[in-house]
Amino acid sequence: MTQTMSGIAASNGIAIAKAFRLENPELNVDKRTISDTDSELARLTSALETSIAELEVIQKKTAEQISEKEAAIFGAHLLVLSDPELVGPITEKIKTENVNAEFALQEATDMFIAMFEAMDNEYMKERAADIRDVRKRVLAHLLGVTTQSPSMISDEVIIIAEDLTPSDTVQLNAQFVKGFITDIGGRTSHSAILARTLEIPAVVGAKKAMADIQNGTMVIVDGLDGTILINPEDSVIEEYKNKQAAYEEQKAEWAVLKNEATVTADGQAVELGANIGTPKDITGVVDNGGEAIGLYRTEFLYMGRDSFPTEDEQVEAYAAVLKGMQGKPTVVRTLDIGGDKELSYLDLPKELNPFLGLRAIRLCLEMPDMFKTQLRALLRASVHGNLKIMFPMIATLDEFREAKALLLEEKAKLQAEGVEVSETIEVGIMVEIPSTAVMADTFAKEVDFFSIGTNDLIQYTMAADRMNESVSYLYQPFNPAILRLVKMVIDASHREGKWTGMCGEMAGDEIAIPILLGLGLDEFSMSASSILKARAQISKLSKAEMAQHTDRILALGTSQEVEDYVKQLPTK
Amino acid sequence: MTQTMSGIAASNGIAIAKAFRLENPELNVDKRTISDTDSELARLTSALETSIAELEVIQKKTAEQISEKEAAIFGAHLLVLSDPELVGPITEKIKTENVNAEFALQEATDMFIAMFEAMDNEYMKERAADIRDVRKRVLAHLLGVTTQSPSMISDEVIIIAEDLTPSDTVQLNAQFVKGFITDIGGRTSHSAILARTLEIPAVVGAKKAMADIQNGTMVIVDGLDGTILINPEDSVIEEYKNKQAAYEEQKAEWAVLKNEATVTADGQAVELGANIGTPKDITGVVDNGGEAIGLYRTEFLYMGRDSFPTEDEQVEAYAAVLKGMQGKPTVVRTLDIGGDKELSYLDLPKELNPFLGLRAIRLCLEMPDMFKTQLRALLRASVHGNLKIMFPMIATLDEFREAKALLLEEKAKLQAEGVEVSETIEVGIMVEIPSTAVMADTFAKEVDFFSIGTNDLIQYTMAADRMNESVSYLYQPFNPAILRLVKMVIDASHREGKWTGMCGEMAGDEIAIPILLGLGLDEFSMSASSILKARAQISKLSKAEMAQHTDRILALGTSQEVEDYVKQLPTK
Repeated sequence: MTQTMSGIAASNGIAIAKAFRLENPELNVDKRTISDTDSELARLTSALETSIAELEVIQKKTAEQISEKEAAIFGAHLLVLSDPELVGPITEKIKTENVNAEFALQEATDMFIAMFEAMDNEYMKERAADIRDVRKRVLAHLLGVTTQSPSMISDEVIIIAEDLTPSDTVQLNAQFVKGFITDIGGRTSHSAILARTLEIPAVVGAKKAMADIQNGTMVIVDGLDGTILINPEDSVIEEYKNKQAAYEEQKAEWAVLKNEATVTADGQAVELGANIGTPKDITGVVDNGGEAIGLYRTEFLYMGRDSFPTEDEQVEAYAAVLKGMQGKPTVVRTLDIGGDKELSYLDLPKELNPFLGLRAIRLCLEMPDMFKTQLRALLRASVHGNLKIMFPMIATLDEFREAKALLLEEKAKLQAEGVEVSETIEVGIMVEIPSTAVMADTFAKEVDFFSIGTNDLIQYTMAADRMNESVSYLYQPFNPAILRLVKMVIDASHREGKWTGMCGEMAGDEIAIPILLGLGLDEFSMSASSILKARAQISKLSKAEMAQHTDRILALGTSQEVEDYVKQLPTK
Repeated sequence: MTQTMSGIAASNGIAIAKAFRLENPELNVDKRTISDTDSELARLTSALETSIAELEVIQKKTAEQISEKEAAIFGAHLLVLSDPELVGPITEKIKTENVNAEFALQEATDMFIAMFEAMDNEYMKERAADIRDVRKRVLAHLLGVTTQSPSMISDEVIIIAEDLTPSDTVQLNAQFVKGFITDIGGRTSHSAILARTLEIPAVVGAKKAMADIQNGTMVIVDGLDGTILINPEDSVIEEYKNKQAAYEEQKAEWAVLKNEATVTADGQAVELGANIGTPKDITGVVDNGGEAIGLYRTEFLYMGRDSFPTEDEQVEAYAAVLKGMQGKPTVVRTLDIGGDKELSYLDLPKELNPFLGLRAIRLCLEMPDMFKTQLRALLRASVHGNLKIMFPMIATLDEFREAKALLLEEKAKLQAEGVEVSETIEVGIMVEIPSTAVMADTFAKEVDFFSIGTNDLIQYTMAADRMNESVSYLYQPFNPAILRLVKMVIDASHREGKWTGMCGEMAGDEIAIPILLGLGLDEFSMSASSILKARAQISKLSKAEMAQHTDRILALGTSQEVEDYVKQLPTK
């Protein structure tokens, strides 16, 4: 009988094939006392060197077969192996504690892994995954263990693994590997990202796949909704083959929309933008027919380095994004750091509730020199495209006024220095704090636009940490309270002739889109890969019809009632 | 020239007298190696026994001269000294590490102090203060040091100290000690509480008083606003003598209002209630003319013990409060634990953002057995007075429905068991989460009343941890966003014929009171000691006139603009 399991949908599509278990080699580390530390250090050096050589090969292969962008992961691994902060403690342990290299490696890296994982920050957790991956490679060399390699697969299979390291994933040949399932990981883990790039259906975080799925068992992976079917009956296989065909058809339909405008069935245009983190993401935006950047998260520019990016470095990044967008609207969010997002070179005090702490604009106003550097860089880059500057985490009018005053001050200085600055930069704010949504009418008189950040807006409005599983039931995008706040913001902006966008997860959600259209949202910003699907959905919806449902939806009492209401709407 | 310093106003009134520095004895602890651990253990035992004998005397003296309630502090100290969890590690250290008793005591208590202080919870921080106080006493005995005693003071003075231990404070004779200033401590520290009981003006948290104020210097302590004046000129002394006289006059005026109803100048009645933590607080409520209990925080029943209070223990406490209030409205809030409020016997997972985590009703719905015990106890006690049950931290209608269903279920069970239960219990909710304020219209159809918890409502609406100093500028009770949410709640309740109270700090604030009257708030609940002052203020205000200002106030853009607006209103 068909057994069902579910996980996190990590890469769209449906795969049907036999299971191939990718076992983790046993890398048991014993503690031994070493008399000859010099030869132990030599063993370590040799293992590090072999690992480096291996990684350079994989990096090259990835750059050729996949992309430069994906190859960057191995650049990160190479950096780990040459980082004195990591290698130092290992050699130190061997020398002072007279222990074997395996043990020293294990202990020293454990510390870093624990540190990164404790941060409860997706980005930093991925750094812990990098260290695990690199450690596994070096340990295998030290122990003389051969690791199983996905590149030896030559049948059509679905890979089952506890986790896929980036180096495993990169060896996946889409000709044979039809899909994969991992027990750990989230939507932003390297393997999930690579799966989407390779367009291999994948489900991650399945928890019990390695425990329950045997080699050779027939498996269906539904990367659209995270379902896994083990030993499916023929009728189930048939059903999923149809679903697979429908999905392929849909993809083809979406592809046609790439160069089209986003227009509702009743002829109303809205803008579909993308959320990006680095200039390299522009390719994905263009490939998916993005009409704008609705959110460029500049904090990535500040991460993974040991000092602040200089003004010139920042100008380069911002100019690259603006040029890449060729005059299309580009909303750049100023630095949103602090809280759970840390910078190694910025020693911020530990906070009891970092999500309610000194972050984003609050920190920038506390550190005006850092902030001014970013503002100057944005102003200097502004001549290269259609720049809109957005301040995050604005809670009061005073904060906005202060931030805008700093911007105008830097603009005047640059102009006095003879530097050319665009005169048409719009200045707006993220609406992600309840007070700002409630006060949107007063803000609308002073800002050029709003962009609603639903992830934070929901978390604060419901007083529930969105990373905390114990209260995840309260992360309710469809709670009418959220929708009422969204309406307040949109209405306030329109009354003053301004526009409102949305750059949280919700903007690309298929239940949310009809509601947001009805509420009059002007710009929807989402992952680039969701744009075409959203465009297809919007083209079938009537904005006027959705607007008629708005009052009834906002009068509902619970999130579930809203979902049920939208689900029973006739889609045109 | 007059030098000015400021701290936290801890106890009302004005004192003018010469400074008396209460020096901390030097209790230097060296680490020594001990060969005869038995005699070292004997030294420890002797110091502990002397301390216990001393504390028993102080406890008795306090019970006689001040009150049983204040004497309880020394009961807590005696418990510390006989707690095997504290004494165990000390003797263990002496035995296994061969160290001297002083060092063992210091090390073991340091650990507990650090642990309690790290909790960032006012209640637990006070436990750290208790341990410090007890340790000082035992150390003094071990070292043979005599500690300076406030009871030897025989001139009119203002005491200056780094901190006052509870045992110092209890020796203060109001005949000579006219006021005190401490460098550390907050409004809820033991010394601040005792100062209010003794009606001695006090300023705490002054930081630099010990550094800047010499013995014999003339000092003015303004416990009304936290100002300290050092070496005041004659004109300043004159000014403060007038202020002192005005304050005494005001106190007399307030006292007259004790048995009066709370009625505005235009004849509108509102209710003034008190926030309490234990049945003992009823005395203060009655003494200050409280018309109701607007908030009984039941979590204190669960604290400072090692297991949950039984149903019978709870019935006893709730019945005592209801009887003490003699039929006046008594709002009991169900358990608000979790987040930063921990119970030693309840092992909750550590959360990254406890204020956005599993607390209050969320936790109670997760632990229905614990919750049902409290509900049964409340129902059983209900026949003794005018009980209203209030659920804290409600974010969604579903949560309220679930909690109310459990209550009705327990009521039916009790009635089936033949237990008498009041049929007129109102069931309401705290409004302290933005979603609930925004959805107040839907809640108003199902609840009997609302009580706005401003401390949390402000913190979530502004997304700023109210304990975090870096973002304290965002804790803005007068931000128009807060006032608009308050209006939504009050209006929604009135449309359904329900009532709205407020039990946060704001309800007793003199700037807030005129605004809240204008918004139509029905019940104001505050510290008992603020009730008479509020009654006097309200008697001079016209509700109709204040209501006319409401729209203008809500249209203002910032907190400062609101404060400025209210300050220029003609009072009456």
